[in-house]
Amino acid sequence: MNRKMVFYLIGRILLLEGGLLLLPLAVSLYYWDGGQIPFLLSIGLCILLGMLLCKLFRTENQVIYAKEGFFVTAIAWLSVSALGALPFVISGSIPCFVDAFFETVSGFTTTGASILNDVESMSRSMLFWRSFTHWIGGMGVLVLMVALMPNLSGRTIHVLRAEMPGPTMGKLSPRLRDTAKTLYLLYIAMTVLELILLVAGGMPLFDSAIHTFGTAGTGGFGMKAASIADYSPYHQWVIAVFMMLFGVNFNLYFLLLLRRFRTALRSEELWTYLLVVLGATVLICINIMPLFDNNVAESARAAYFQVTSISSTTGFSTVNFDQWPTLSRMILVLLMFLGACAGSTAGGIKVSRAVLLFKTYRREVRHLLHPRAVTSVRFEGKPVDSPTLISVGTYFALYIGVFAIFWFVVSFQPGFDGVSNFTAVAACFNNIGPGLNLVGPAASYADYGPFFKVVLSFAMLFGRLEIYPMLIFLSPSTWRK
Amino acid sequence: MNRKMVFYLIGRILLLEGGLLLLPLAVSLYYWDGGQIPFLLSIGLCILLGMLLCKLFRTENQVIYAKEGFFVTAIAWLSVSALGALPFVISGSIPCFVDAFFETVSGFTTTGASILNDVESMSRSMLFWRSFTHWIGGMGVLVLMVALMPNLSGRTIHVLRAEMPGPTMGKLSPRLRDTAKTLYLLYIAMTVLELILLVAGGMPLFDSAIHTFGTAGTGGFGMKAASIADYSPYHQWVIAVFMMLFGVNFNLYFLLLLRRFRTALRSEELWTYLLVVLGATVLICINIMPLFDNNVAESARAAYFQVTSISSTTGFSTVNFDQWPTLSRMILVLLMFLGACAGSTAGGIKVSRAVLLFKTYRREVRHLLHPRAVTSVRFEGKPVDSPTLISVGTYFALYIGVFAIFWFVVSFQPGFDGVSNFTAVAACFNNIGPGLNLVGPAASYADYGPFFKVVLSFAMLFGRLEIYPMLIFLSPSTWRK
Repeated sequence: MNRKMVFYLIGRILLLEGGLLLLPLAVSLYYWDGGQIPFLLSIGLCILLGMLLCKLFRTENQVIYAKEGFFVTAIAWLSVSALGALPFVISGSIPCFVDAFFETVSGFTTTGASILNDVESMSRSMLFWRSFTHWIGGMGVLVLMVALMPNLSGRTIHVLRAEMPGPTMGKLSPRLRDTAKTLYLLYIAMTVLELILLVAGGMPLFDSAIHTFGTAGTGGFGMKAASIADYSPYHQWVIAVFMMLFGVNFNLYFLLLLRRFRTALRSEELWTYLLVVLGATVLICINIMPLFDNNVAESARAAYFQVTSISSTTGFSTVNFDQWPTLSRMILVLLMFLGACAGSTAGGIKVSRAVLLFKTYRREVRHLLHPRAVTSVRFEGKPVDSPTLISVGTYFALYIGVFAIFWFVVSFQPGFDGVSNFTAVAACFNNIGPGLNLVGPAASYADYGPFFKVVLSFAMLFGRLEIYPMLIFLSPSTWRK
Repeated sequence: MNRKMVFYLIGRILLLEGGLLLLPLAVSLYYWDGGQIPFLLSIGLCILLGMLLCKLFRTENQVIYAKEGFFVTAIAWLSVSALGALPFVISGSIPCFVDAFFETVSGFTTTGASILNDVESMSRSMLFWRSFTHWIGGMGVLVLMVALMPNLSGRTIHVLRAEMPGPTMGKLSPRLRDTAKTLYLLYIAMTVLELILLVAGGMPLFDSAIHTFGTAGTGGFGMKAASIADYSPYHQWVIAVFMMLFGVNFNLYFLLLLRRFRTALRSEELWTYLLVVLGATVLICINIMPLFDNNVAESARAAYFQVTSISSTTGFSTVNFDQWPTLSRMILVLLMFLGACAGSTAGGIKVSRAVLLFKTYRREVRHLLHPRAVTSVRFEGKPVDSPTLISVGTYFALYIGVFAIFWFVVSFQPGFDGVSNFTAVAACFNNIGPGLNLVGPAASYADYGPFFKVVLSFAMLFGRLEIYPMLIFLSPSTWRK
């Protein structure tokens, strides 16, 4: 393993984090809310550590292989989260480091699970940093580095793809750095659009920024105890629609930019995703109507908001859906696992994988009924080869296996019931945020023990990085000479 | 579809069931316990219906295809269960038909989930029939028919394999009828051996028969409220060892008969299974030691018994494991899903599938780390081809999907908590029997509503027949002309 290059890259990422921390520093200077010193100290530490690593491990041999790629990804996310937790600890907003680490991992992985029982007492700059981690983590830390840093070799960049979400990250552009740039430009454009729409509706700029970050990264950190419930229907609709939009494969937006409308609108994944959202919304809307005095508009808004929030794995809420009837709660639990489209900022299994598994199942049945018929699985207009089908099946099994292990471990937390533990792991592993019962939208993760908070943090990282980087990082064989 | 042949075969199966019902009739005549009339009536109905179907649908065209095979399997299990429920209803032991149907499906599918709150008040002949269904269902109704009936064409027999458990039912013998006969002879031999060992230890013959049936079919119906707790340690050990043995692939016993010891003992599936049983036993034994005043012998027996009971999907119990610590309970829940070996009478995902998925996952990691390396997945000494790997992955996804749907539906039962519903579906779908909480070993399924009892019955059938036959039977396209 090219250890030098690994640490060199980590150094670069810490420098980048130091740069990103300037934004919340600016916020704290503007509001003069006491965040100045904590942010300055954190920036200093990031830059110091980053420069130290870059200096010590500067190397001519920039070639890294897949193993290093996964390794860098895992360490990068862990160290960015550890340093990103410092402002909370230094300022005393979250005095315990484990809590702050949980909160920051939850931010970067765009989970939105919080240990804060009183979010409204947090200072503005801390709230800003907390939500800004969503925005950074949504498109990826390494992707950002690749987009920004000119002097990395092509091969190195290629290997850093481990972080990009989804099974079939299409090539938007022949050079991966251009892809990363395009992705970030689209991301910024959509972020700005949502921000404008929210401000135009009368939401204060600061609130709009917070909620836009949470929506864009499909994260879910807000700034009110009641999440989005206190805002107007207009704002709820805007956020709901953007949650859905950020759950769409970004390749499709790129195709729209290129005016290849037909190709974009023929996407099977898109239509499946939209149908799932629509179907779930209708079912839940009918189911919860009595709770809203049979007011269709209100129950439709609540249903659509919660469906897009969970299926895009954001985790905002406008009502306490933990008090909804069984049907609605069960639909939401199933949506937790599905997630949204590949190549979006959302978590979960991803719609494309589910579609592929379903098509493979249909082929199996056809094969069982007509053993001699030869049929291929087609997806997005192209036949899918066997290695891909095996990979998808294996990923699904791995996904369930990893989920089962996390669930197993977390169930040792005393005082939590089965449903709370199950949905806590589901909500963290799928990067959603709130679960049901003791971790429902009106509650927090504060009562989990420190060990379990670390375990749940790892669950978030496993989910966000699609398992393999973390698994390779943790496997003993990686650490042997 | 060759409908005539389908109904003809169902007729034959009902005739067979009529014949099998003679055994409990004999028991009721011996004990003169009031079961005579109910069994006579049921036998009469089976024979009448069977002869009617055979007469009406006798056909020259005996050729059936895969579709008919799945169809016959599904209908056969449904109708055998429906008619098998009659003695309970007629005798009044289980007056409600839905309850009796649940109990009989539970018997034939070797689940062992019961709606009886007071099993000890049941008459001897009814207890006998209830447990005998385990023994019949263990090796399969169609397999028995194939073994017994001479005038079926080879092709027809081939198609009826849908019922045999496991992904890779090896060819024990070139002709499938001989395979079926060999399987049943082995099955009978092991059954007799267990019966002798139980009787030799002083258990009454009747009790021994009941528990041998429950063990051989990996079913779990007993005759005491406390399951096996009232019997001596010797009997508990005998039953525990046989539960483990009936969870082994029967092909291996056949290999032993042929004196191919080496081949049999090299089986990866066997060793994995034994290691899982051993590992789980040791962990649970240490974990529950304090509950037994640190008596190693007693906690080892309780641990080994419960582990073999759950992993072989039998469901007997010697203690109320629902009151064990979290670690032990969680291990048992995970074992519920794993099941035992393919080609045994056990349910669950099966060890061989789990091993294949794990090996495929390891190859994926190797491939991710060394993209150019070409490696194949090997199982039992042979390379596994891509279609098999795809099938295993798809089956796993389907398994989880079907489980999720059943869980979704059952969670509408009012008054049951999440853990009860989850483990109820797990215990039925994996053909185990008892779950946790409200469906724990000390409780029953009596409180589920009629609709949910039918749903859980279908979950048992889906699990026992490995999903595809039931799915094809229920899919609308099968019913279109």
